Amino acid sequence: MKAEILCVGTELLLGDIVNTNAAYIAKELANIGIDVYYQSVIGDNDNRLKEGLALAFSRADIVVMTGGLGPTYDDLTKETVAEYFHRNMKLDAASLESIEGFFKRLGRPMTENNKKQAMMPEGATIFPNANGTAPGLAVSENGKTAILLPGPPAEMQPMFQSAVLPYLMGFSDKVLVSHNVRIFGMGESRVEEVLHELMKNSTNPTIAPYAKMGEVTLRITAAADTKEACEKLIGPAIEKIKKAIGKYIYGIDVPDLQTAAVEKLLEHNVTIATAESCTGGLISERITQIPGASRIFGCGVCSYANEIKHRVLGVSEETLQKYGAVSEQTAREMASGIRRLAGSDIGVSTTGIAGPGGGTKEKPVGLVYVGIDSDDLTTVLKLNINYHKADERNYIRHMTAQNVFRLVLKALEGKENQDG
Amino acid sequence: MKAEILCVGTELLLGDIVNTNAAYIAKELANIGIDVYYQSVIGDNDNRLKEGLALAFSRADIVVMTGGLGPTYDDLTKETVAEYFHRNMKLDAASLESIEGFFKRLGRPMTENNKKQAMMPEGATIFPNANGTAPGLAVSENGKTAILLPGPPAEMQPMFQSAVLPYLMGFSDKVLVSHNVRIFGMGESRVEEVLHELMKNSTNPTIAPYAKMGEVTLRITAAADTKEACEKLIGPAIEKIKKAIGKYIYGIDVPDLQTAAVEKLLEHNVTIATAESCTGGLISERITQIPGASRIFGCGVCSYANEIKHRVLGVSEETLQKYGAVSEQTAREMASGIRRLAGSDIGVSTTGIAGPGGGTKEKPVGLVYVGIDSDDLTTVLKLNINYHKADERNYIRHMTAQNVFRLVLKALEGKENQDG
Repeated sequence: MKAEILCVGTELLLGDIVNTNAAYIAKELANIGIDVYYQSVIGDNDNRLKEGLALAFSRADIVVMTGGLGPTYDDLTKETVAEYFHRNMKLDAASLESIEGFFKRLGRPMTENNKKQAMMPEGATIFPNANGTAPGLAVSENGKTAILLPGPPAEMQPMFQSAVLPYLMGFSDKVLVSHNVRIFGMGESRVEEVLHELMKNSTNPTIAPYAKMGEVTLRITAAADTKEACEKLIGPAIEKIKKAIGKYIYGIDVPDLQTAAVEKLLEHNVTIATAESCTGGLISERITQIPGASRIFGCGVCSYANEIKHRVLGVSEETLQKYGAVSEQTAREMASGIRRLAGSDIGVSTTGIAGPGGGTKEKPVGLVYVGIDSDDLTTVLKLNINYHKADERNYIRHMTAQNVFRLVLKALEGKENQDG
Repeated sequence: MKAEILCVGTELLLGDIVNTNAAYIAKELANIGIDVYYQSVIGDNDNRLKEGLALAFSRADIVVMTGGLGPTYDDLTKETVAEYFHRNMKLDAASLESIEGFFKRLGRPMTENNKKQAMMPEGATIFPNANGTAPGLAVSENGKTAILLPGPPAEMQPMFQSAVLPYLMGFSDKVLVSHNVRIFGMGESRVEEVLHELMKNSTNPTIAPYAKMGEVTLRITAAADTKEACEKLIGPAIEKIKKAIGKYIYGIDVPDLQTAAVEKLLEHNVTIATAESCTGGLISERITQIPGASRIFGCGVCSYANEIKHRVLGVSEETLQKYGAVSEQTAREMASGIRRLAGSDIGVSTTGIAGPGGGTKEKPVGLVYVGIDSDDLTTVLKLNINYHKADERNYIRHMTAQNVFRLVLKALEGKENQDG
């Protein structure tokens, strides 16, 4: 089965946004054994869209399109596909209702042009959009299938997982099951090096690595007649991975480090408080992203100024003068200080040079101390974060937060063993 | 002049890497007035590469290619282009010398296959590669021009700036200028409705809307003989937009609301402190994303628990009991409390129901109070944030932060007028 990816949008053609959709879809299709030989980007132009679609179908069975499902006159993808399949456009009542509901929740009047988003080619399979107004859809006939998805990744990706994958699996008689092994503290090339033989020789399940901002995920995917048969294929592969790189694995099927840490805190009823300097609130922000975090988090202080480190967190003036704000000693006193102020079980702290300015020879950009104060673990880690030049500040702050969450998981390991 | 972008690489087709090159090149070409109607991605395959190149030249004058310039047998871009133009491949002595020099600096022996990277189609213009071994090149004949660039962005981008842009400027006699009008508080469809006639009738300058997370940007782009002539075309369009929706415009050519607010704070030397409940640190995190923020920000408190609102920020127990944590009164006392604690010029606060749980009939999910306390403006805004269902918590927190930054800009307007 061959597929092509056709992304529609003048903002892509002009380079205003990077086409992450093509990579995302390509990877997902590769994962379920669908080959992609071409990816294209076309603007919102009637004729070029028609030609592009015809060309894609001359080479492939499935054309996955993104973009051009919006409410404005230059959103033409659906109409082009309807024309290709000789279908009329028809108002889809369920889609209209869902769009109306969306605007009702917004408390805003629905504009007339939003109705256009509920117009669908006759006989289309419709994919509801939980995150926006444009539903996705598929039209299939004579071995040719067009799949149309909204452009914003935050709408497209959940729709792909919840609706498009099951739809595509309908073309096969197999069931597909995936598990994600989350890895922190080991680079992608190193993971690939260590697991090279295993990854290369695995066809069912497949093992595919995904790298993102200092983390690696291995997605293990099996195809079989039943869900149970898939799990039986996946189990031994995960065991082999654990054996090879177990200490870098922080979870399986958890979305990310912060969720893994907060879920463990919730599970063990352990409260945490944050004292942040270089991360500026990033850690408390990430903790509180997770619903229910208020049960384990009550207080964070972003002590950007030394005076606040001293007056609010109780870091001694002597420490600040003698060792400076970016020091092991300050990180230690910040962690114990916030724990005392909040009355929490764990206190964590960050202090470092996030750049781009502020670095010196002794304390270069990327030097960060992260501290933890708790009954089970009290320590300070010194990090030298290797940064990507163009985005150093964000990257250094992100990696600092990741290391704090890893430290929290480590502090809870004792609890795990006690409980178990 | 029309161009196409043709990116070569199996790793792109498989989605292993995101195609940032296409966006980069597209933006650079748009900037100098060269239209791009198609972008394509093809794998390292002889036949498909040939077909892809022929197709691209059937539609465009310039084809910019990336990738496939490496030393291995499946790097075929140069050979394909040579064949298209009926040129022989020939060893380029200067390129060979430069590749040898590169390996010498690395202290590594040059392998035999690296010599392939010095083989060039006869008569090609060669672009030296300061950051890797593969030189870029251009071949031009009968109004058709192929530009071949290395795949790694760290090699491609500097080469584009130093060699490709000067080469391309030889083809164009126009200059292009863009300005971005940033809008907050008005949805994309509403902006388009109000400005429909203006946008539709504008050809030079063009007016293009971009929407992202509750914000809209209008990009106004003009083409003319000189930069000054472009500005003269753009000026009246911006005036018309200001006249129609001026109160929703928070800046021109600023990257986002948080930057607009922090830059104004820096400009006027006004310090700020944050007291966050439902945003959990998001606002302090966004302020401190901006280098230099320490000059105007020293202290943020994330008071997630009521006890912290009372004990650290000084919100009275009576207020918390009588009106609850999510109330105008609490927001007001949080803002004044953090201002007092930090000794800052401005105190801002957030308290609300970010969801997904925690809503009641009286205080539903999306109800948020944002407060500000300063000499120029002391007020509390009640927001009913209309959320996207699947991502409500993030969206509500994001929109809360946006409203705080809007409030900060409003508080500084007085300063603007005084200073002016």
